[in-house]
Amino acid sequence: MDKIKLFLTDVDGCLTDGGMYYGASGEEMKRFCVYDGMGMVQLMKNGIKCGILTSETTEIVARRAKKLQLDYLFMGVGSQVRQGVKTKLQTCQDICAELGIGLDDVCYVGDDINDIDLLEAVAKAGGLAACPPNAMPKVQAIANIHVTKHRGGDGAIREVAEEILGKD
Amino acid sequence: MDKIKLFLTDVDGCLTDGGMYYGASGEEMKRFCVYDGMGMVQLMKNGIKCGILTSETTEIVARRAKKLQLDYLFMGVGSQVRQGVKTKLQTCQDICAELGIGLDDVCYVGDDINDIDLLEAVAKAGGLAACPPNAMPKVQAIANIHVTKHRGGDGAIREVAEEILGKD
Amino acid sequence: MDKIKLFLTDVDGCLTDGGMYYGASGEEMKRFCVYDGMGMVQLMKNGIKCGILTSETTEIVARRAKKLQLDYLFMGVGSQVRQGVKTKLQTCQDICAELGIGLDDVCYVGDDINDIDLLEAVAKAGGLAACPPNAMPKVQAIANIHVTKHRGGDGAIREVAEEILGKD
Amino acid sequence: MDKIKLFLTDVDGCLTDGGMYYGASGEEMKRFCVYDGMGMVQLMKNGIKCGILTSETTEIVARRAKKLQLDYLFMGVGSQVRQGVKTKLQTCQDICAELGIGLDDVCYVGDDINDIDLLEAVAKAGGLAACPPNAMPKVQAIANIHVTKHRGGDGAIREVAEEILGKD
Repeated sequence: MDKIKLFLTDVDGCLTDGGMYYGASGEEMKRFCVYDGMGMVQLMKNGIKCGILTSETTEIVARRAKKLQLDYLFMGVGSQVRQGVKTKLQTCQDICAELGIGLDDVCYVGDDINDIDLLEAVAKAGGLAACPPNAMPKVQAIANIHVTKHRGGDGAIREVAEEILGKD
Repeated sequence: MDKIKLFLTDVDGCLTDGGMYYGASGEEMKRFCVYDGMGMVQLMKNGIKCGILTSETTEIVARRAKKLQLDYLFMGVGSQVRQGVKTKLQTCQDICAELGIGLDDVCYVGDDINDIDLLEAVAKAGGLAACPPNAMPKVQAIANIHVTKHRGGDGAIREVAEEILGKD
Repeated sequence: MDKIKLFLTDVDGCLTDGGMYYGASGEEMKRFCVYDGMGMVQLMKNGIKCGILTSETTEIVARRAKKLQLDYLFMGVGSQVRQGVKTKLQTCQDICAELGIGLDDVCYVGDDINDIDLLEAVAKAGGLAACPPNAMPKVQAIANIHVTKHRGGDGAIREVAEEILGKD
Repeated sequence: MDKIKLFLTDVDGCLTDGGMYYGASGEEMKRFCVYDGMGMVQLMKNGIKCGILTSETTEIVARRAKKLQLDYLFMGVGSQVRQGVKTKLQTCQDICAELGIGLDDVCYVGDDINDIDLLEAVAKAGGLAACPPNAMPKVQAIANIHVTKHRGGDGAIREVAEEILGKD
């Protein structure tokens, strides 16, 4: 995994346990995990670009990305309900073109059906496709996908980061 | 389960883990699950009407139903504390009459004593009566009820949706 | 347990899992459980008085008690940090005197060291002293205390209510 | 452990389960545990100074420290992202100098890489270095570290407090 140059992850179910805290004004909070934040900070310190790809568009995620000073934040991609938006695969390909790297240099973490195209493409290219154990069965069944021990929102992203960085 | 045409579910304990987050102004938040939302979106994409039946009346649930663009939202039904309200069974029968379908075309997910009448009626009619493993013992004891593997608020609704849609 | 006439419970760790959600203005939320609320509603429907005894004083608990229309709410009792306040045992004895009942008619659920006096008194009198499995070891070691299967905030109170009402 | 005179702990992952609740204005809440609060209150009642060392700077933690009337609160120490701040080890040494005690009189609880220097120094000096079971592998691998049974945010701090006070 020495050659990973770009780390991307989905939000709900990967950076969280899938919980969406609703109040009288709609979704008001998501629960992130301190370990995952430290993991992405360590990746960036080691020169690996980090970003988020999510089908939702919410200030909650924007705030978390800003706090961690992530390199990329794409919201509204791969949406199942809106027309005319880029898929997560297309978005990742755009970033790769900008960085002059290939999908084999990418690590992507996803957990649901709208992550499958990108996960399969990354896995086939020889990159690192990963998902937490709470991912949908169809995601866990992708050839060569790495299923983490830690659940989403409880260190799954940190675990992948440590593997990329070669830490025990 | 090919013939399910209407999917209805209770909220607390089914779409959530039963947690009610109270602040200084009363109940302020509920925790929903991204997987369940995706499950109901997939059901509706496949032509199955989706809705919520709950004894509570709260803007929190209204917001979640609106986000998912559910077909039906009935709040305040089957209440144990208010008089003169329709039961969940009566409400379901009204929807069936409107759609010109029978209880054998219905899937209902519930978890507590005020769900028993509707769950029993659906089960007896040959529809799909389901509950999460955190449901009350009296609910889990209903004849022919389907107890999900996933707990409420952690994918129970998605699991039922996948079974209805015949996905593995 | 047929003769229980008064049901009292502590809040943190019993009606919740012990979690205290702090924000920039202090404690902002507690997570209660729908099953516990229904349990106390069922007790009151069956003529059993219900109430809360807590060493904290917070509008959060007041709101939960109001929603459930509990018979008693005593906050600030048994405090470890403030002087001159009544203990939980004294408060319970006052309620018993008012109702003309004895400690043998009482069920009390507690989980920490400031609940021990009342739990021991209830247990010795032949009432029902109970605690969740997350209670402190010293509490679980009280003679004749009933340790529930469900954890605080996840149905411990409902479980006790069902036992009092003789439901399976 | 009779001679512990100063108890210090990290926040995220120790006083919490690592969860960070984000809303539209950034991190809005952390979930603390009633048992841990009672544990530190008991330590202070027994003459042991208590405090928090955290790399974050947030009013959320300030409010929790104020509620418990902790003796020390140092925020922004040991930060991985800001330059020119004191490490947690330096901060602890300053407190020790002020109190006229040594690291062998200190108990420190931490869980991540920026806690390692202080944990190792305390362990080597003969003080009590502890971490919850959710701590990073590198932390759990520190020589002579005490790994608690309870997880962070679910009583880990109370468990250490009880051990210091010699309670079963």
